[in-house]
Amino acid sequence: MNIHTLTRELNVPNDSKIVMLVADGLGGLPMQPGGLTELETAKTPNLDALATRGAQGRSIPVCPGISPGSGPGHLGLFGYDPMEYLIGRGALEATGIGFQLQDGDVAVRCNFCTLDGDGNIADRRAGRISSEDSFPLANRLNEIELSEGELFVQPVKEHRFVVVFRAAGLGGSLDDTDPQRTGVPPLAPTGDDPASQKTAKLAAEFIEKAQLVLADQPAANGLTMRGFAARPALPSFHDVYGLKAAAIAVYPMYKGLASLVGMDVVGDPKTLDEQVDLLTSLWNDYDFFFIHFKYTDSTGEDGDFDGKVGRIEQLDAVMPRIEGLSPDVLIVTGDHSTPAFLSAHSWHAVPTLLVSDCCRTDEHQAFGETQCRSGELGQFEAKYLMPLALANAKRMTKFGA
Amino acid sequence: MNIHTLTRELNVPNDSKIVMLVADGLGGLPMQPGGLTELETAKTPNLDALATRGAQGRSIPVCPGISPGSGPGHLGLFGYDPMEYLIGRGALEATGIGFQLQDGDVAVRCNFCTLDGDGNIADRRAGRISSEDSFPLANRLNEIELSEGELFVQPVKEHRFVVVFRAAGLGGSLDDTDPQRTGVPPLAPTGDDPASQKTAKLAAEFIEKAQLVLADQPAANGLTMRGFAARPALPSFHDVYGLKAAAIAVYPMYKGLASLVGMDVVGDPKTLDEQVDLLTSLWNDYDFFFIHFKYTDSTGEDGDFDGKVGRIEQLDAVMPRIEGLSPDVLIVTGDHSTPAFLSAHSWHAVPTLLVSDCCRTDEHQAFGETQCRSGELGQFEAKYLMPLALANAKRMTKFGA
Repeated sequence: MNIHTLTRELNVPNDSKIVMLVADGLGGLPMQPGGLTELETAKTPNLDALATRGAQGRSIPVCPGISPGSGPGHLGLFGYDPMEYLIGRGALEATGIGFQLQDGDVAVRCNFCTLDGDGNIADRRAGRISSEDSFPLANRLNEIELSEGELFVQPVKEHRFVVVFRAAGLGGSLDDTDPQRTGVPPLAPTGDDPASQKTAKLAAEFIEKAQLVLADQPAANGLTMRGFAARPALPSFHDVYGLKAAAIAVYPMYKGLASLVGMDVVGDPKTLDEQVDLLTSLWNDYDFFFIHFKYTDSTGEDGDFDGKVGRIEQLDAVMPRIEGLSPDVLIVTGDHSTPAFLSAHSWHAVPTLLVSDCCRTDEHQAFGETQCRSGELGQFEAKYLMPLALANAKRMTKFGA
Repeated sequence: MNIHTLTRELNVPNDSKIVMLVADGLGGLPMQPGGLTELETAKTPNLDALATRGAQGRSIPVCPGISPGSGPGHLGLFGYDPMEYLIGRGALEATGIGFQLQDGDVAVRCNFCTLDGDGNIADRRAGRISSEDSFPLANRLNEIELSEGELFVQPVKEHRFVVVFRAAGLGGSLDDTDPQRTGVPPLAPTGDDPASQKTAKLAAEFIEKAQLVLADQPAANGLTMRGFAARPALPSFHDVYGLKAAAIAVYPMYKGLASLVGMDVVGDPKTLDEQVDLLTSLWNDYDFFFIHFKYTDSTGEDGDFDGKVGRIEQLDAVMPRIEGLSPDVLIVTGDHSTPAFLSAHSWHAVPTLLVSDCCRTDEHQAFGETQCRSGELGQFEAKYLMPLALANAKRMTKFGA
């Protein structure tokens, strides 16, 4: 029995509203031992007031010591065990550019490359072709028609693009065509099972037609494929939690991850204020709102401690608008830590704050890594945050009599 | 490898005595944010003295966010993963009235119903028949003899009763006969596999004979069956821990749960003092004593904060008598939280206190939810409490060389 068996079975529908505000990479480190983290340095009167009436704790995104990327980090927050539900590289790349994969789609990451006269790879990245030069090529490849199903070719950046195959009965278990070296030709796509062999046939057809389109290119006259992956089979938020969920995100990756679990990706906000505008206007239409704030992560990755502090203060400033909607459960957390000290995602436990009328308030009056260590929520695997949210929203009955 | 593989393999017999005192629904909530819980409000000088020389922590009954019923709550405390060991509805109902299921028994919950002249269900609860009227009927059904094995029919309450089939080779995987609506006849019992088909045959024979017994009843002239379930296959306390265990409980449900894990259900105490009398008189006969105290849960379910406080103080008052027996390991815990604020079982971590000569005493000098958050035992899944008890009783050797 897994946790979703329980959340399904114990589901109690009601009118409660749950807001999960994810400050990407929220957790941090002091710049010197004994100092304050970014969150502890930031002036956060609104978050501190929430902490006074809420419960804090530490979320372990995957397991201790593991630094997650955005995919596993968010799957955990959404209640999907990131060690059980894997998003293949192709599917993650497609998701990252906001492509909404459908059930049965198979996605693959591609590189433009340079082939010599014998068809051997001379340059694996087509001379580091610029996005300006590569995007029109990807768009031309997107015009190709295959003998069966639909084809989507989407530019990513420079020599990188994504191909998605959509047809009945495709499998995602294929070997890479990229031989990972020069002086040899790309490999032919090969599938590990009948369904994947069908994908391999379509991929071979695509490669053949793409070569014709690219034949006159000076650098990008060939392509390689890596990380074939079917859309991961994730049960939807509505299925496992009975929640109608909206994702309010600025960046394509987070829209894509939310769509993988069946959230409605709403609007096209560009700023945090616009995100809260959307939250307000859609308040009556959804049960659950995922709000994603990117800049705590990007400043952390830049090693910009003060910049991250500023972004946390920016987040703090919008809290009254969210609280003004009176959510039954309000959660502030991150998908992982991104300490400016490391300029990278890290494994450190993620500060998490949950406020409801029955959260068992702890004694802390500020939101920070230090307080979270002895907060009421304790230390928990991120995948349990959704059950906690449902419990606090009184959306689950008891297990067993 | 599961935890019982370890507890079996590492078992070291000795003469130690372990007492586990379960205050049902012990954990609570303040009635207003920042206030004290029931346990923190209660004057508990004896528990506080134990806390001073013991170790506290927080037990998670099932997993974060899940509010357990008595079944999963106690299985966890007894060291049986409640997500792995499931007690089917019929088996739990039989257990709840104190029926001691044997291996191979199949139990089912039944309703008296009213059938019209065509044999269709006119009232699914036989006009909400009173216990006074229904109990004699159940007793008459208990006289029925089947062509094979033994039959037990036990009244529960009003229209509800339990039937237990006992014969060789019975399975518990059967569909309900209750169609969940009126105007149609009850369904015939059907089994999913040969063993369950054998049960279905006995159930059909019982229904046929019961109809004759009930034929002249004005309201309760039929019956429906729901939740067939075999006795769950739980390895015994003696098998997994090498413990001879006694259950000292007042209420049938807890006697039944203890008997499912092979404890001896001893005596018929009516009060906490009588429970401690039994503990004292049986002290030399057992290694492990489970004492169940119900009223912390029932007052919590009634939303009676002050009543729950009083019950905790009542419990505190008997602690010196238990301590006087000098148990090697003394545990005070709950099977779940039942905050008066919610008038219901909840998911909140359960305060737990363990006292032994090697428990690594923490700094706390009172027993309460706040202290438990930073106690020596930390936060742990309930299923690990028994290994902790065995370890403190020095009943396990090390794992691996």
